Formats: sequence, C-alpha cells, structure tokens
Amino acid sequence: METVVGRATSPVGLHRVLEPAGVLPQAAWRLDADPRLREDEVRVRVERLNLDAASYRQLADKHGGDGNAVRAEVLEIIGVRGKMHNPVTGSGGMLVGTVEEVGPASRLGLAAGDRIATLVSLTLTPLAVTDGLARWDGLGEQVPCEGHAVLFGRSIAAHLPPDLSPELALAVMDVCGAPALTHRVVARYVSQGRPPVVTVIGGAGKSGSLALAAARRAGASRTIGVVPVPAERQALVDAGLADAVALADARDPVALADAVRAAGGPGDVTVVCVDVPGCEHGAILATAELGTVVFFSMATSFATAALGAEGLAADVTLMIGNGYAAGHADFALDVLRTSPGARRLFEARVSAHLGAVHPPR
Amino acid sequence: METVVGRATSPVGLHRVLEPAGVLPQAAWRLDADPRLREDEVRVRVERLNLDAASYRQLADKHGGDGNAVRAEVLEIIGVRGKMHNPVTGSGGMLVGTVEEVGPASRLGLAAGDRIATLVSLTLTPLAVTDGLARWDGLGEQVPCEGHAVLFGRSIAAHLPPDLSPELALAVMDVCGAPALTHRVVARYVSQGRPPVVTVIGGAGKSGSLALAAARRAGASRTIGVVPVPAERQALVDAGLADAVALADARDPVALADAVRAAGGPGDVTVVCVDVPGCEHGAILATAELGTVVFFSMATSFATAALGAEGLAADVTLMIGNGYAAGHADFALDVLRTSPGARRLFEARVSAHLGAVHPPR
Repeated sequence: METVVGRATSPVGLHRVLEPAGVLPQAAWRLDADPRLREDEVRVRVERLNLDAASYRQLADKHGGDGNAVRAEVLEIIGVRGKMHNPVTGSGGMLVGTVEEVGPASRLGLAAGDRIATLVSLTLTPLAVTDGLARWDGLGEQVPCEGHAVLFGRSIAAHLPPDLSPELALAVMDVCGAPALTHRVVARYVSQGRPPVVTVIGGAGKSGSLALAAARRAGASRTIGVVPVPAERQALVDAGLADAVALADARDPVALADAVRAAGGPGDVTVVCVDVPGCEHGAILATAELGTVVFFSMATSFATAALGAEGLAADVTLMIGNGYAAGHADFALDVLRTSPGARRLFEARVSAHLGAVHPPR
Repeated sequence: METVVGRATSPVGLHRVLEPAGVLPQAAWRLDADPRLREDEVRVRVERLNLDAASYRQLADKHGGDGNAVRAEVLEIIGVRGKMHNPVTGSGGMLVGTVEEVGPASRLGLAAGDRIATLVSLTLTPLAVTDGLARWDGLGEQVPCEGHAVLFGRSIAAHLPPDLSPELALAVMDVCGAPALTHRVVARYVSQGRPPVVTVIGGAGKSGSLALAAARRAGASRTIGVVPVPAERQALVDAGLADAVALADARDPVALADAVRAAGGPGDVTVVCVDVPGCEHGAILATAELGTVVFFSMATSFATAALGAEGLAADVTLMIGNGYAAGHADFALDVLRTSPGARRLFEARVSAHLGAVHPPR
C-alpha cells in the first residue's frame, strides 16, 4: 500500500465525499474509504469503535435488544456509507487504533505505531471493516473491530494515556467536550462575581458525571445532579459529585422543574446530558431567568428548544454543546484523575460494557 | 360566551394539551382550542396570521407554488392540531388580532379591544379558523384570517405601535429575537475590549437586516452581510446596513468561508438568518477561532451543528437563537425606527407580501 501523491486534496476531507457532491464529509451520505492516502492524510488500523450513546440506544431499541440484528445493521451502515453514521440519530462515535501510515504532509504529530483515539466523530471518518465485527455481540457501545480509518489534514487525535486503560480513556475522550464547555460556562459566571447553581440532567452518566466534577472545579455555588431511576440516584450520591441529587423524568417538564427546585434550584446553568428526546422544555423550565442551558444530547431538537424558550417566555441562553474545545481531552482526563467519584462511576460503566463484550464463560 | 372558572389551570397551558398527555403545548400534537377561557387566559379575535418563513417555504415548495393547495393544507393543519404547527418544519409564526375577553386572573396587562400581536409561537397557541381562509390566496406568508386564539397566563403579547402599519410591526415582531440576541452577544465582546467582526448570513432578510443594524449599534468593528443573489446584494448595498456585502450560497461551506474572508472576515460573531437547511457547516467554517455562531434559522439541525464543529476542530460557541429576550419587541421596533436602511428593506418586503395577498386588479 502506498501513499498516493499529486492529487488534489482538502484539509477537511472534501475529496473523500462521494455523494452528494460539494458537502463536507459529515453532511455526506457516502464517503470514500479507500485505504490509499492523500499527502496530508493518516491511516489508522482500527481496534475498537465506541458508538455514541444515542446511536447505540436507537439501534438497540429498534431491534429489541437482539445483538445479532444490531451488529448486522452497524455493518450495513458502514458498508453503505463508508462511515459509521447512524442515519436516524445523525450521530456516530469515535475509535481507538494504531497509526499505520502517515502522509508526508500530515501535521497531526502522529507516527506509525502510535496508539491513538480519534476525537472527531465517526460521522465524518472514512471507515472500512474487514472482520464482519465477529468479536462483537451487539450488546454494548464498545465494538471490537478490525479495519481501517482515515484522518484528514485537519483532524483531532489523542495519544492514549499510559496510566489509564484504553477502554477508560476512550470512554472519557468520547464525552470530553462536556466537561470542557461546562467548565468554561461556569467559570464565566464565577469571573463575573456570581458563582452559579449548576444542574446536570443525567448526572450519573459519562458526560454528566464529568460535567458535575468540572462545574464544581470551576467554582459552582451548588451542584445538582438529576437522574431518572433510584439505582442511579444511589450511585451518584455514593460518588459524592453533587451537592444534591434529584430523581425525575427529564421528559416531564413540570416534574423536572419541581424536582430541581426542591433540590435547591433552579439552576443558573443547566447541562443536558441525557440521550433521550424530549428534554428541551424541562431543561428550560428548570433554569433561572437569564440563565444558560447547554445541550449535549444528540437527541436535542433545535426547533423544540428555540420555540420552547419563546413559548415559555424564558430569557435564557441556549447553547449547542460543541464536541470540541482546545485541550478538551487532556482536561477531561485530568478531571477523571482528580475526581475519585467520577472515576468510580466511569470504571463501573466501562466494566459493564466490557462484560457485555466479553461475557463470562 | 363566558369565562369558565373553578377548573384547574396552568400558566403554561398544560390544561389545553389533548395529546400526548403531560407535554407542554408546543410539544403537543393536538391542542384544545375551545373559546371558553380559564381564569388566567385571554381570547383574541384573529385578523391575520404571519407564517414563519421556513414553514411557508416548505409548504410552497411542496405544492409547487399552488396557492390553493397551500391554503388547504394550512387549514387542515389548524383543524387537526388546534394550532398552526407545521409538522415538517416544527415551526409556526405569530398573529395579529384584537383582544376579545380577558380572564379575571390574567396578568398580561391586556384589555378587551386592545390591538395586539402575539409574541409566542403559533406552535403553542390554541387557534380556530372560521372563514376557511377565504381572503388568502396562499401565495404569501401573511394570512388574512377570521377566528380566535387563546393566550395562557404566562405568555407574551405586544400592543401594536401607533406609528407603524400593523403589517410592518408584525413583520418586525416576528423576528425580534434576532436583533435583541445579536445586540447582547456583540455587546459582550465589546465590553471585553474586543469589538467583533460580525457576519450576518441572509443579511438582506427580515431578521438579517435587523441583526446587522443591531450589531452596528452594539459596536461591531465591522459588519458583513452575506446574500445568495445579486438582487439582494444590490438591495443590501443600497440599504447601507453592512460595511461589506458578500455574495455566496450559504449551503456551500467552502464558497461561503472564502466569500466572507474576502469581505474582511472571518467573523468573530456569525449570525445565521437564512431559512434553508444545510448552512451549519458553512457558518462554522466562516467563523474565527473562539468565535460565536448564533443560529436563528428554524432549518438548523442540532446534530449537524454540534458534530460539524467537532469535525472541523472548530473551537466556537454555538447558540440556539432564542426567540424571546426581555424587551425584545420594543428593541426591534426601535432598531427599525432608527435605521432607515432596515426600514426600507422591511417596507419593500411587506409590500411584496401584501401584493401577493391583494393582487393588483
């Protein structure tokens, strides 16, 4: 296999778009996953895909928990689209692998043999699978996988840290935008002399637990974690990540707002980290006037959020959770290392997934 | 007709939701448009609906410009749903009318006979039409209409100003969230000692022209208006609202970013005011690092924006344009009164719509 040189290339991967023409790779229906590289590209030998939670949940729900059917559909999506881009949720995930070849013009700082995680979404990453996902039972988000992926000239990849297991690091990096942006938003309130009450909806989840730890580190005056079931409430109380833990269905706006108020809210900052549709109105209703709602869930509806705030006459700032911020991976790993509670929650979740991937004999 | 008292009521209208149960009115499939009022409600005799641009465009495109078919579908939507809530775009619009009855517990400050515009979306406003929209030809967004609408305890309505025509005031109020939020975002940059370059995509449109005027008023260092066709370029140049006017298709990310750069960009603040899908990537690519993108278009996809920024490794703040901010209607009217260029653009657009509603004999 050789690097192909001398062909027109684009740092954002326009040359990999097969259809429709002229769009960026994330918007494309189909990408070219040809393993031959342009001058500024990098090819990665894939070890593991980490499907994003909304995507995996949609597939698992659709197939009623039938792992074989989930696996078949993931294979079909990748085969047809040249990327793992769930057409229903519009989301993907990320991957871990080893750098196989680096184009001579690449400036990503990678070398052959480096073990990395990609921090751009699978929805724009050319991907081909060669083992039929034979080692995956379809019952968890982490997918052992053989194949290759391609990184563009302008992309983001992080070396796997030596002190954490790859599974743990991958799970952290997958949601590292949430703690970075939460920290930034909370710190802005603090710098203005008004440390905020911060509510994290889905506080016991991956992005949620890191967001809670980041909010506290940034100087929140109070942190409230909202969870949907008693088992998660107990886990979050045990983790000690929140000053108060509330139990509520985030899809029920009135119940959510009441529960948050009873826990010391409303929040000046509300962070939505649950991957179910229909949480927009509740998040807005549970936020103080002139507050901020940050939506990290890919199940968020733009129109529902915008019109919901208007309909509730709620003067709040609504933010789309950007998955990227400078230094976000290192920041998230540091939050994990320094927050024993978040680490315990993460390790429990990763173990659960590994258990599904490698069922006990 | 009498006010019904003594029944359980909700300031956000939960009692008007017929299905599904337990959601807020905007999320509901079907509302109860019964003209009998609860204690804190207000009934309005409707004169005119103003469909939001994305909704009207979808309907007009679907029916190939057949006005009768558009009218029939609008009637069907209102009849089935009890509100004008386009099921495809998820958007609605607003209305003008005269207050007919005010419940004894209403705190909206309205009295029978007041001429008002509603500033909450039609997607959550109980509505019934009694004239079959007979005076509307289906060829424009402004819909002469007889019927009634209901406002909840917590709602927003503005008195029509005496110095502007109702059509003009309605058109301004329909988009008054855009200038208010643009002003707020730009003012924050200015207060931090860094007056921003502001790009408004769709700068010759209703929300776009007011956003440009608001950005300049807030202290932007440079304003760039982006338009899709030469006629709009000429109109925006003549209006004098922007320091530079660029011609580009906002759905083509690379072309858009190039055009904005050539006009003195990238913008520190990019405001998206075009009602076509697929503008997310271009807006992000045309924004400076650590900049802010504000999406006002109801055609915005949450996942495309979030994953697009991540995929482009763009560290930018992404905001959902909230249609409500305290004082937004008065602010927008004041921007119009003090910006002759914006006023000319608005009056031309309103005339065009009225022309469609009342074709010359």
